[in-house]
Amino acid sequence: MDPKRLESLLSRVRSGEVAIEAALAELRTLPYADLGYARVDLHRALRQGVPEVILGEGKTPEHIVGVAEQLIRGGQRVLVTRLSADKADAVRARLPVLEYVPAARIARYRTDAPKLGGGFVAVVTAGTSDIPVAEEAAETLGMCDVRVERVYDAGVAGLHRITAQVEMLRQAAALIVVAGMEGALASVVGGLVAAPVIAVPTSIGYGASLGGFTTLFAMLTGCASGVTVVNIDNGFGAAMAVIRLLRARLEAP
Amino acid sequence: MDPKRLESLLSRVRSGEVAIEAALAELRTLPYADLGYARVDLHRALRQGVPEVILGEGKTPEHIVGVAEQLIRGGQRVLVTRLSADKADAVRARLPVLEYVPAARIARYRTDAPKLGGGFVAVVTAGTSDIPVAEEAAETLGMCDVRVERVYDAGVAGLHRITAQVEMLRQAAALIVVAGMEGALASVVGGLVAAPVIAVPTSIGYGASLGGFTTLFAMLTGCASGVTVVNIDNGFGAAMAVIRLLRARLEAP
Amino acid sequence: MDPKRLESLLSRVRSGEVAIEAALAELRTLPYADLGYARVDLHRALRQGVPEVILGEGKTPEHIVGVAEQLIRGGQRVLVTRLSADKADAVRARLPVLEYVPAARIARYRTDAPKLGGGFVAVVTAGTSDIPVAEEAAETLGMCDVRVERVYDAGVAGLHRITAQVEMLRQAAALIVVAGMEGALASVVGGLVAAPVIAVPTSIGYGASLGGFTTLFAMLTGCASGVTVVNIDNGFGAAMAVIRLLRARLEAP
Amino acid sequence: MDPKRLESLLSRVRSGEVAIEAALAELRTLPYADLGYARVDLHRALRQGVPEVILGEGKTPEHIVGVAEQLIRGGQRVLVTRLSADKADAVRARLPVLEYVPAARIARYRTDAPKLGGGFVAVVTAGTSDIPVAEEAAETLGMCDVRVERVYDAGVAGLHRITAQVEMLRQAAALIVVAGMEGALASVVGGLVAAPVIAVPTSIGYGASLGGFTTLFAMLTGCASGVTVVNIDNGFGAAMAVIRLLRARLEAP
Amino acid sequence: MDPKRLESLLSRVRSGEVAIEAALAELRTLPYADLGYARVDLHRALRQGVPEVILGEGKTPEHIVGVAEQLIRGGQRVLVTRLSADKADAVRARLPVLEYVPAARIARYRTDAPKLGGGFVAVVTAGTSDIPVAEEAAETLGMCDVRVERVYDAGVAGLHRITAQVEMLRQAAALIVVAGMEGALASVVGGLVAAPVIAVPTSIGYGASLGGFTTLFAMLTGCASGVTVVNIDNGFGAAMAVIRLLRARLEAP
Amino acid sequence: MDPKRLESLLSRVRSGEVAIEAALAELRTLPYADLGYARVDLHRALRQGVPEVILGEGKTPEHIVGVAEQLIRGGQRVLVTRLSADKADAVRARLPVLEYVPAARIARYRTDAPKLGGGFVAVVTAGTSDIPVAEEAAETLGMCDVRVERVYDAGVAGLHRITAQVEMLRQAAALIVVAGMEGALASVVGGLVAAPVIAVPTSIGYGASLGGFTTLFAMLTGCASGVTVVNIDNGFGAAMAVIRLLRARLEAP
Amino acid sequence: MDPKRLESLLSRVRSGEVAIEAALAELRTLPYADLGYARVDLHRALRQGVPEVILGEGKTPEHIVGVAEQLIRGGQRVLVTRLSADKADAVRARLPVLEYVPAARIARYRTDAPKLGGGFVAVVTAGTSDIPVAEEAAETLGMCDVRVERVYDAGVAGLHRITAQVEMLRQAAALIVVAGMEGALASVVGGLVAAPVIAVPTSIGYGASLGGFTTLFAMLTGCASGVTVVNIDNGFGAAMAVIRLLRARLEAP
Amino acid sequence: MDPKRLESLLSRVRSGEVAIEAALAELRTLPYADLGYARVDLHRALRQGVPEVILGEGKTPEHIVGVAEQLIRGGQRVLVTRLSADKADAVRARLPVLEYVPAARIARYRTDAPKLGGGFVAVVTAGTSDIPVAEEAAETLGMCDVRVERVYDAGVAGLHRITAQVEMLRQAAALIVVAGMEGALASVVGGLVAAPVIAVPTSIGYGASLGGFTTLFAMLTGCASGVTVVNIDNGFGAAMAVIRLLRARLEAP
Repeated sequence: MDPKRLESLLSRVRSGEVAIEAALAELRTLPYADLGYARVDLHRALRQGVPEVILGEGKTPEHIVGVAEQLIRGGQRVLVTRLSADKADAVRARLPVLEYVPAARIARYRTDAPKLGGGFVAVVTAGTSDIPVAEEAAETLGMCDVRVERVYDAGVAGLHRITAQVEMLRQAAALIVVAGMEGALASVVGGLVAAPVIAVPTSIGYGASLGGFTTLFAMLTGCASGVTVVNIDNGFGAAMAVIRLLRARLEAP
Repeated sequence: MDPKRLESLLSRVRSGEVAIEAALAELRTLPYADLGYARVDLHRALRQGVPEVILGEGKTPEHIVGVAEQLIRGGQRVLVTRLSADKADAVRARLPVLEYVPAARIARYRTDAPKLGGGFVAVVTAGTSDIPVAEEAAETLGMCDVRVERVYDAGVAGLHRITAQVEMLRQAAALIVVAGMEGALASVVGGLVAAPVIAVPTSIGYGASLGGFTTLFAMLTGCASGVTVVNIDNGFGAAMAVIRLLRARLEAP
Repeated sequence: MDPKRLESLLSRVRSGEVAIEAALAELRTLPYADLGYARVDLHRALRQGVPEVILGEGKTPEHIVGVAEQLIRGGQRVLVTRLSADKADAVRARLPVLEYVPAARIARYRTDAPKLGGGFVAVVTAGTSDIPVAEEAAETLGMCDVRVERVYDAGVAGLHRITAQVEMLRQAAALIVVAGMEGALASVVGGLVAAPVIAVPTSIGYGASLGGFTTLFAMLTGCASGVTVVNIDNGFGAAMAVIRLLRARLEAP
Repeated sequence: MDPKRLESLLSRVRSGEVAIEAALAELRTLPYADLGYARVDLHRALRQGVPEVILGEGKTPEHIVGVAEQLIRGGQRVLVTRLSADKADAVRARLPVLEYVPAARIARYRTDAPKLGGGFVAVVTAGTSDIPVAEEAAETLGMCDVRVERVYDAGVAGLHRITAQVEMLRQAAALIVVAGMEGALASVVGGLVAAPVIAVPTSIGYGASLGGFTTLFAMLTGCASGVTVVNIDNGFGAAMAVIRLLRARLEAP
Repeated sequence: MDPKRLESLLSRVRSGEVAIEAALAELRTLPYADLGYARVDLHRALRQGVPEVILGEGKTPEHIVGVAEQLIRGGQRVLVTRLSADKADAVRARLPVLEYVPAARIARYRTDAPKLGGGFVAVVTAGTSDIPVAEEAAETLGMCDVRVERVYDAGVAGLHRITAQVEMLRQAAALIVVAGMEGALASVVGGLVAAPVIAVPTSIGYGASLGGFTTLFAMLTGCASGVTVVNIDNGFGAAMAVIRLLRARLEAP
Repeated sequence: MDPKRLESLLSRVRSGEVAIEAALAELRTLPYADLGYARVDLHRALRQGVPEVILGEGKTPEHIVGVAEQLIRGGQRVLVTRLSADKADAVRARLPVLEYVPAARIARYRTDAPKLGGGFVAVVTAGTSDIPVAEEAAETLGMCDVRVERVYDAGVAGLHRITAQVEMLRQAAALIVVAGMEGALASVVGGLVAAPVIAVPTSIGYGASLGGFTTLFAMLTGCASGVTVVNIDNGFGAAMAVIRLLRARLEAP
Repeated sequence: MDPKRLESLLSRVRSGEVAIEAALAELRTLPYADLGYARVDLHRALRQGVPEVILGEGKTPEHIVGVAEQLIRGGQRVLVTRLSADKADAVRARLPVLEYVPAARIARYRTDAPKLGGGFVAVVTAGTSDIPVAEEAAETLGMCDVRVERVYDAGVAGLHRITAQVEMLRQAAALIVVAGMEGALASVVGGLVAAPVIAVPTSIGYGASLGGFTTLFAMLTGCASGVTVVNIDNGFGAAMAVIRLLRARLEAP
Repeated sequence: MDPKRLESLLSRVRSGEVAIEAALAELRTLPYADLGYARVDLHRALRQGVPEVILGEGKTPEHIVGVAEQLIRGGQRVLVTRLSADKADAVRARLPVLEYVPAARIARYRTDAPKLGGGFVAVVTAGTSDIPVAEEAAETLGMCDVRVERVYDAGVAGLHRITAQVEMLRQAAALIVVAGMEGALASVVGGLVAAPVIAVPTSIGYGASLGGFTTLFAMLTGCASGVTVVNIDNGFGAAMAVIRLLRARLEAP
């Protein structure tokens, strides 16, 4: 898959520097560490510019600690998402180097890293209850040294709350719009700015909000074209999509 | 049920003017005409201020003609909704007094009637494709002599299209907002005006719009409070809700 | 947006009374208070005749207190809905001026206000379990000084329970029908009265009642025309819809 | 399975009248005719008091004719349900002894049979569009010589249309209530009578009626207890349920 | 509605025995007791042969006690369904005359009553986990003095478990089949017997069993005709349907 | 991926027989033919023992012909599934070597091939309408020279129709059960035999059968353990699953 | 049903060795033990090669102990699935011979049994959170002496994690792929190997993963043909399907 | 909203150049053309870098022609999407300047425009049937002068079809992945490249593919982070999202 490494290997095979059996072995053993319960991908930072993120939900504290230690040992940044306060305590008891951010429900370990500079990303919410998801996005961006402007509680029922911010929004390199209920904010913001807009539906609301599916569908079918969507409550995924595009911009010729 | 009629009947029973058997019969035979396949309610106009409306969908032309004739004979206005052009031809061949309005898919027969005056109702659509449903509402209001202002194609992706109309919208006695997709227009309009707003979701759109259900749910869960909703594509129902409130206003002490 | 204020501002710009920069700033800063986590709309009472209501669900006690204080400081009434007893205790510990109504799960702070007089609103429930939602509606109406008549446990399986009340129901200025299960009461009441009827589906029931969605859909597709619907369990929303129409009636020429 | 037949067989085995191999064969060959594409159950009339009914939908005319011929040859009545007019023509071209009833979309062949006497069954519909399903039920009952009273277009939005018939409904041996939309009629009728009520949801309606599922769920969750439900548009199934109970009554000691 | 009572009232009006105002009042006050939160129907036992049953779920112990006392005072039997053990304790603390049956989650108060004799009803379950729903049905039948035969854990994966009982099942006056998962037992039993079969889907199972909806739909679409269905876990409703048909049989000429 | 081919390539690189650039190219060009609109996998027959099958639905006749020609040129068998009669005509006009089987809606081209011998596969259907799906499975098996026994119309409402075949079913190497509606046949057969059972839900039925989803869910949640399921109407997929296991058996040591 | 036993019984009837009444009784009493709440199938091990498994969920500890004791008394292995740690304690207090495996949430009792030898089964998971379901499958296979190779955390977002294992996967006799979210691993593995693949969707994930239904549907509609699917989280069912095919292979001529 | 225009207007108001009434009027009349049935946004090209696109579905040919003429008159490019061949004929009869692209179901009118240069966008499909949606995306990108590389029929069941293209995919500025069924291709591609990936679910497939919803949900819940999603079959929306990010890159400092 990695053509340069393959070419080098083949050269060393030709020169006799590497035995055929060793080459076969190397071709099979790609750089991940097998912990039995997890295969930790140590080269993702190289491949995708971000560390392998650990989804805290559904994992035991032991598994989380095991994977995080492996990443730290590999010299990588660590981000654990959807980590409840209780589980964070259990994890940090064994790995105090991790810092917990309750508002975003994440734990993190940061090393120095090259900055993804150039402008800022606006993180906008429709209501106060959408803030935890927005914070997950904002903290993930922070992990990658991206500057964030927060615009919270700017839902469309009081249209002036969003229109008053238009100028700032139009200067953002990208926008993450976090909303529940009918998700109209994504359409309105998408119509007001030309930059990339990632919409995050939240599971806020009751009855007809269907645990976030109404918002998800509303955002997918919304009338502002070119707005893309991630899974319900997936602030982390929205941040990762922004990082993909900021990196692509950096590397553009 | 009708206390005055009951009181009068009882008086006539006491006076011997009406025999007990006859009273029993009358108490059982309320004023509807039984056509075998339909029981036509001839007093609805009195009870609710609007004629019994005939839902054209799912009825044979023979049944539609039969019911309409009965109403006309009873001196009432007639409104047939969801009537395809083909079926309208078959119906009008036998009952040419009915007038067909293709844009609204309705047929109607009007008599003079007291006006539901006082101001106008704004019928607003998000897009061009929502117009047939809006016309069904507008024509139904017209049947009851309510003045209508149409504001079509004012979706929120171009916010200025709706904000430019705010002043007029604020003067409406009531508003009907017809929208498909994420239905954000209902929230935005609901936040801009204080008058009653009836939202009508339309089945416009594809994929995640779920044949109108995403819009329906989005409108129900929308962030502007006090907006009420009717069934998908039910322009007629929205008009009837407006007529209920205009009549209530007329009769208010 | 507010044409009078805009005209006055422009006049003061022309007269030199207001500098262009100041005018620009004012045009951008509409009257809301930005608390960081919330943008409190202080003029909604003016615009829509009701205070900004705080949805208690999904907010921390700190956020609820913060917004409520801002509203009280602005001289406004306060209504917090969907507030659990536990959270109410935490909120009232800091803001004892709020009064808690457990049956309706709301907290409120009332000031004197002009009355929305003229008649009464009937709040009808199908069963005993629908009462909390009905109380949310009734208390919200009470906040706006609207008189309420309660008719509870009048489901259609014992038809005489509702027909016995017909005369009173026909005198109501508007009706809120709260029902779970098949929601037939909305159709029956809608057929008996000519006044506006707002139907509130409740999440009462099990299995095929689908957490209120069967009732919601049944009410939307019900056979009495002109009945409109709000979200499941949304007694507050129904009350707000009634307030919109009572205000519109007051202001009618 | 059939204990008497088994006992007799065993006796004949003991007496040597039947060879063990023959007994084994008979125990395996139960009385159905294998046509390759169908196994026609010739004893169902004996077992369940009704002929095997042929669901016309999804079968070729050849298959329908083949099964019907086998039943007629076996001296049985034949009922083909959900048979479109086109397919009926193709079937009757080969088997003219079948009579087609377009209003019920059934074809039938009747022989003399013992009557399921004792009273009548009321078939009630909410609207005119529900009539085809009601006719499927009525014709199926007719096939079994059950007397039927039809009460059509008696929906609850005009409550007097059903209350005027209460006395007759209370005399029915059983009731089939056919309704679309919110299906409230089943609850209302179920509350008015003590006899068995079978509810049939129809696929009439649009939007929130969900092709009949809203009605189905509403009927299942309806507030009149002891009402049972069959599949959407399944007039035939409702009739069969009534026949089961009429037969059980006949045979009761 | 009650024609005899109406006729007598009219006679007394004619004779002057009853004043018109009094007659009007009586015509409006049908025999229910209004407790504010509930309208207790004291004549249901007369009208439908069963007491008004109290659905325990969603009611406070106070409300349950209030309604039950009213019924007991009216000389009626009482049945409280879906009553958790905790709530039962609270209820029985105030009304120790009620007896609690934990396996069926019901509380009951029995008086002597005419028996619904004639045979027995078979209550069949597919698995062990379906027993609580079956017991709700069996206990409700017991309340009305109907004899019950229980056949539990007879699912179709071991077909011999049900075929071994065929003879007994064929002698039942009616059958209640309680099953979760694919609900095949209802089809199999429906094909084996000619008597009325009421199917009760249960919410047993996980994943694709959809909380009982797969079973519900499977039973509705099952291949044995004339099987009818009640709501998920609604053992009570199935028993009530059986009581309707047993009573109808008793009263048949 | 293919270790032997990789080892040989590496040997030839070491020996200088193959240049590094050529090795790189070969490592990248795996054996598929790129037609622009399709990448035809010519080695699937080797890898998986079956030809690449062409799903006819959603492809133009031109695309089908192009892919089929490529496969025939590669010396492979061809199977086109879900091919309507119309499209089959258009395809066979250009490629008459294909044979069309209308009952199974497939077109095929056969070459000689090693047989997957050893016993037979039983294909069982619940009803007559399930036959086309069963034929798709049977014909696909026939393509791979597997012997098939058909048992059609053996639904559980007439239990003797399936129990009469038990002995034969128990001798099958594997069973494919094709059923619509409640899909009970899969549970019953799964309980009667020990061999692998693949269940195929069909979209036969109306209303609560949900276009096959009720059957799908019922089969997934069915009470006979070890029954596996394929997509709705996917007779082809069931046959492929059987071929996987017959091949595995052949190759077992 | 069991032809040999039937033949022998008939012979003994003919010879007079068995009385007709006794034969009738025996024909009715098939080999299950009726515990009142359960009918324990003592011959399933003979019929299907596996013990009757007890689904722990939804049963009381008393019922579990009762059934397990009956099986142990019958000389059979016992497997209790979906048993929470709490309930396991209650069960083992009475039946300490059962061994509890927390990672798989099963309890088991093993006797010596013939081995299902010949190769191994690969159990593959996409993520760490899928391990409990995989363990349920692996432990069930272990109960039947099948060798298992575990490949955990090999999801497709890091494709090299699965491709590195291809050689081993290709040697497996059958594969169980356990995955949540989009379930792509089943398609990828199905395309890489020719052996039978059973896919198990898990309920891991949030929002659009719909509690496992997205994975279930994705696996059913996946592009690798011949992959079959079991219910969500049903590791046990997948193991049983593998056992069916391993046994069939053993018994193949 | 447009601060510069507002500032200039205010300056001209101060200088007396513009009367207050005229300023008020201008503030209200934003630059759209009101056609009655549509409000054509003539400045969107300026605001968002793309012309207003006309969704052909659900509009009459007259409306399409009217809007397109207005845009052409305004000197803008025109793109009509989801235009059937029939409707395209009707539109082009009146506006022959439009060019129709059947493979993408779009009509277009191009003028010279500044190029969005810099690299290329890869459009990848899983199957042949996904091509029309991919072409809609590719043609929309072409309208904006973006270079496109097409990689069609590269589904994951033959993994080598996609891995062979990895090098090229890694050089793309952005990727659009179009897939139906389980949509695994989006996860696999997302794991292989670091650039932005927009996933487009298609409605290809049957049964469990749920008309594209399974793919939609699978893509949303997929395991490669940072992949975003648009509505089902929305090739146009994916292209617009790419254009947003390419423009943002161009304008980045």
